[in-house]
Amino acid sequence: MGQALHGYGAGMGRVTTRVPRLRVDVGSGVESSRPDTVLVEEPLEVRVEGEALATTMRTPGDDFDYAIGHLLTEGLIHSAHEVAAMMHCTDVDASGVATFNVVDVTLRPGGHLRARPRARTETMTSACGVCGSQSVDDVRSALRYAAEPGRARISPAVVAGLPDTLRSAQKIFERTGGAHAAALVDTAGDLRVVREDVGRHNAVDKVIGALARDTDPPFGDLVLVVSARASFELVQKAAMVGLPALVAVGAPSSLAISLAQKVGMTLVAFARGTTFSVYAHPERLVAGQDVTQNI
Amino acid sequence: MGQALHGYGAGMGRVTTRVPRLRVDVGSGVESSRPDTVLVEEPLEVRVEGEALATTMRTPGDDFDYAIGHLLTEGLIHSAHEVAAMMHCTDVDASGVATFNVVDVTLRPGGHLRARPRARTETMTSACGVCGSQSVDDVRSALRYAAEPGRARISPAVVAGLPDTLRSAQKIFERTGGAHAAALVDTAGDLRVVREDVGRHNAVDKVIGALARDTDPPFGDLVLVVSARASFELVQKAAMVGLPALVAVGAPSSLAISLAQKVGMTLVAFARGTTFSVYAHPERLVAGQDVTQNI
Repeated sequence: MGQALHGYGAGMGRVTTRVPRLRVDVGSGVESSRPDTVLVEEPLEVRVEGEALATTMRTPGDDFDYAIGHLLTEGLIHSAHEVAAMMHCTDVDASGVATFNVVDVTLRPGGHLRARPRARTETMTSACGVCGSQSVDDVRSALRYAAEPGRARISPAVVAGLPDTLRSAQKIFERTGGAHAAALVDTAGDLRVVREDVGRHNAVDKVIGALARDTDPPFGDLVLVVSARASFELVQKAAMVGLPALVAVGAPSSLAISLAQKVGMTLVAFARGTTFSVYAHPERLVAGQDVTQNI
Repeated sequence: MGQALHGYGAGMGRVTTRVPRLRVDVGSGVESSRPDTVLVEEPLEVRVEGEALATTMRTPGDDFDYAIGHLLTEGLIHSAHEVAAMMHCTDVDASGVATFNVVDVTLRPGGHLRARPRARTETMTSACGVCGSQSVDDVRSALRYAAEPGRARISPAVVAGLPDTLRSAQKIFERTGGAHAAALVDTAGDLRVVREDVGRHNAVDKVIGALARDTDPPFGDLVLVVSARASFELVQKAAMVGLPALVAVGAPSSLAISLAQKVGMTLVAFARGTTFSVYAHPERLVAGQDVTQNI
């Protein structure tokens, strides 16, 4: 199931499309009608053993990465090796074009999902017990890996360079201005995998899935970099595969910070230019750190 | 059920919180430890007649607006009048603090939800039939209002001013850098309602719900303005309450464009400075339009 990690396009090539567009500048009074390149958004349904698990709006391509990553970060599998095969259904739409919008996952003989898929409409068992600290506790009890405090040290200079590393790899964003990106980098700041998608959760699932198809988690020596804000769910996904640090270009939420603090994850946000802010576990950031010690 | 439309805070005041933070500038070598204001993210469960409908991660406050808006944009109710009462469950968390993270909705006697809530894990009936055009058709068949082509004309100068109008109303973003905003404006560009949230879908549900608590849809003379990108789901939510135009600060997706074209909605994206781009139904944008004709 291996594939080139840097490259895109394990799925279909319908990542962008050309559309007519009227551009208006009320300052100069100029109107121009010329096509624009926009990001493709299409539904993807993931099925396990023929049963629908989840449907998401995503950018086509790297669908198998997405499926593996989604199953891992939701705790439904523990390793890509538990998957025997993945295939795109070959259904066609009304105009006879293959849609490639369903991925069917087959588990190894005797295998089964390791948790019950979350349903949106699930009735809670407690009377009224929905709160952020409970959400944090739920994630903690579902984790298989604990972040090791002394591991994955990274120098502030490397952290400050990560947004540029990510940006230079955002090929789809460059063409459309509309794609989120997620990357996995090592503690020297070198890019291991990058994926882009219309949804930031999808981009994270894809990048984790892409690596997990070659290497089993935990990913205790890598850092997740995202073009988006740091929300609870992104910290959760990172924690589920043992990532020790998350670097976000955008703002952090309160619950993302709480969760990162509790699970021992270094949380960096507002990474822009030469500056960034650390909201949890700054002890991994060691100035003048000789990163080769970690290799 | 009326309330001031401009104002926030019908729910709790836990919109932002102070957290410790280490700010690093690798350019100057300066590190400073000082608290930061971040956006609160907490789970909210909406129940109808005691049964859990959906749980979302949201910013607390305006939870009743969210509940009404979510039920409307999902097609589960057609008017806020179908709701008899909403209450926050008064459960407490482990430290004895009220969580206010569950809203229980009671329908009027004899009332019932008008559609089946969408479940994430639903098995599709067709063999492999998931595609964007099907998603567009599904939305079209669920719509109760058709956009009127000759209605809600708006001048390009007004459109160009909408991002500034929105930005000046984004009080939470100003403090946290982490909140999405959605506003409803009239065709003269005057702000009717604005709401902010950690999630862009939530912000849209809240702003629609806030208006719908005073006025029944369709909202055929108003424009939805969002700080985010224009995705399929945002166009869908706008179409469900008959909004004729969506103006997004960010990029549009392919499926958002397809849906807007099909349902007769004017779709503007990349609204920045004096420029914007129109991806669907530009005929509503009439230069030199005397907007008082629409009033």
